Amino acid sequence: MRILVTGAAGFIGSHLSDKLVLLGHNVLAVDNLSLGREANLEQLKGNQSFEFLRGDVLDADWFEQLFDGRSVDCVFHMAANSDIAKSHADPTVDLNDTFRTTFAVLEAMRKADVRQLVFASTSAVYGEVEGRVAETFGPLKPISHYGAAKLASEGFISSYAENYGIRGWIVRFPNVVGARSTHGAIYDFVHKLRRSPSRLEVLGDGSQEKSYLSVVDLVEAMICVWRSTNAQTNLYNVGSPTTSTVADIARIVVEEGPQSAEIVYTGGDRGWIGDVPKFAYDSSAIQALGWKPSMTSDEAIRAAAKAAWTEIR
Amino acid sequence: MRILVTGAAGFIGSHLSDKLVLLGHNVLAVDNLSLGREANLEQLKGNQSFEFLRGDVLDADWFEQLFDGRSVDCVFHMAANSDIAKSHADPTVDLNDTFRTTFAVLEAMRKADVRQLVFASTSAVYGEVEGRVAETFGPLKPISHYGAAKLASEGFISSYAENYGIRGWIVRFPNVVGARSTHGAIYDFVHKLRRSPSRLEVLGDGSQEKSYLSVVDLVEAMICVWRSTNAQTNLYNVGSPTTSTVADIARIVVEEGPQSAEIVYTGGDRGWIGDVPKFAYDSSAIQALGWKPSMTSDEAIRAAAKAAWTEIR
Repeated sequence: MRILVTGAAGFIGSHLSDKLVLLGHNVLAVDNLSLGREANLEQLKGNQSFEFLRGDVLDADWFEQLFDGRSVDCVFHMAANSDIAKSHADPTVDLNDTFRTTFAVLEAMRKADVRQLVFASTSAVYGEVEGRVAETFGPLKPISHYGAAKLASEGFISSYAENYGIRGWIVRFPNVVGARSTHGAIYDFVHKLRRSPSRLEVLGDGSQEKSYLSVVDLVEAMICVWRSTNAQTNLYNVGSPTTSTVADIARIVVEEGPQSAEIVYTGGDRGWIGDVPKFAYDSSAIQALGWKPSMTSDEAIRAAAKAAWTEIR
Repeated sequence: MRILVTGAAGFIGSHLSDKLVLLGHNVLAVDNLSLGREANLEQLKGNQSFEFLRGDVLDADWFEQLFDGRSVDCVFHMAANSDIAKSHADPTVDLNDTFRTTFAVLEAMRKADVRQLVFASTSAVYGEVEGRVAETFGPLKPISHYGAAKLASEGFISSYAENYGIRGWIVRFPNVVGARSTHGAIYDFVHKLRRSPSRLEVLGDGSQEKSYLSVVDLVEAMICVWRSTNAQTNLYNVGSPTTSTVADIARIVVEEGPQSAEIVYTGGDRGWIGDVPKFAYDSSAIQALGWKPSMTSDEAIRAAAKAAWTEIR
């Protein structure tokens, strides 16, 4: 099957591309390299089943001609802004990079008659909700523009699915960690410790608690949902039943580092506007499909911390 | 209070403007007159509390300068595409007229520090759902681009509310009927009967069943929600507990017309792609605020049919 992956040079997109090639698919990798890095796809260079094309999904002329004569069967749309806090000052970041990219993908698919779309959505669509949240939860009140833009994307995926016979798989990600990540607490903590090895200052009081999933498990989950379900629009939470607090992350990152360090908390219940202090998925629906994470939240953080200490110098 | 109403020359926007002026507010009415009609605001011309400005919300330079020196307290954002079926052929109609107008309003409010937004949302965000649907229903799978664009709008209203201290009132409308309407079954049936007075052809089998609300009751509901609730984002279904079938509408329209007519059904369970065959709201949340419709669904249709026979010649 020929699969076009947008955001393929990003953290999750590159792991996904690795896996799709491994499964025998022909991967057309697209990235504008604004956030992605070509180095993330180094291992696929020269592979006959892999092609990388640098360009912007929002450049309609360029993007839509990609489909000409290439008989794309499926699109995995991973391209998005990945820095949730950034768009507080400029909401057009998520309007364009997170939502309008999705609309552009849908328009290109409609025009080229491509019928399968797997979409990277997010727990941020739920907003500030406590307890275990299932797919049936409503109303959705995202508190970040990132969550709003992903919700907007979900809406149009659903309407395109109904109008043009496209099949959509919407996969709501939790916090995802692992090698090649360039954002988030692990990344920030390793950076801080590289600058100041004996002391780690942590925003908030350390009690923020979320479910973290290894990028390896996430890629398996996306492929499981795509292969096992067949409604017009299929929508699944992907998450681990386990969670970690910010304090757990800080401790694990220090444990995996080269030396001991004091951990100091600034206080308050969250780090920045748009962050959700406590959140956990009800992931029973995807587990009923046969998928389960191979690592707990803490184990995923430990594996990611090991990678971050290697990558960040 | 100074209130800016977008889409003020439209069907619902004009009734809303009437009511807001009646309540003693100062109304700044904005419309690009692409769907709205200046005649709908005729009765407000010359009123000291009313000003009409022709222009497009998507023209940011024009729209954002409107707020300069006018100390707008609240925006009622009613501007949208109102022809759900139209965007099947061109999805950018709802992208632009239904979603991007909302984003433009939010950006203008953020820049001018306007803190109150009342938004016309829709049952179309729910998609094809049977039974009585409450606000807590999920996941939302809109089947029209109109529903997708309204859901996208809701998402950004929620994120703007959290990020910039804006208060949002999202009011999910049912099918709304009444004087000045330019779309929908009543309008279409009267048009058809004006051309062919003795025979009315109806798309589908007549069993499509929805809740119809009088525009008069809808305006009261919007104002009730706006005045009675105070969360950062307030979200309410507005609907009548009663419903009408397409067959009811056809019968009532013929009864209110100048002569008897035979009603003929084309068959099939819906009229066009994106239409939802059966739908009814659970509207207990808004009824708990003290609002209730003054007319049943059938009564609202009868009042609207009377008006349509007068308006359509």
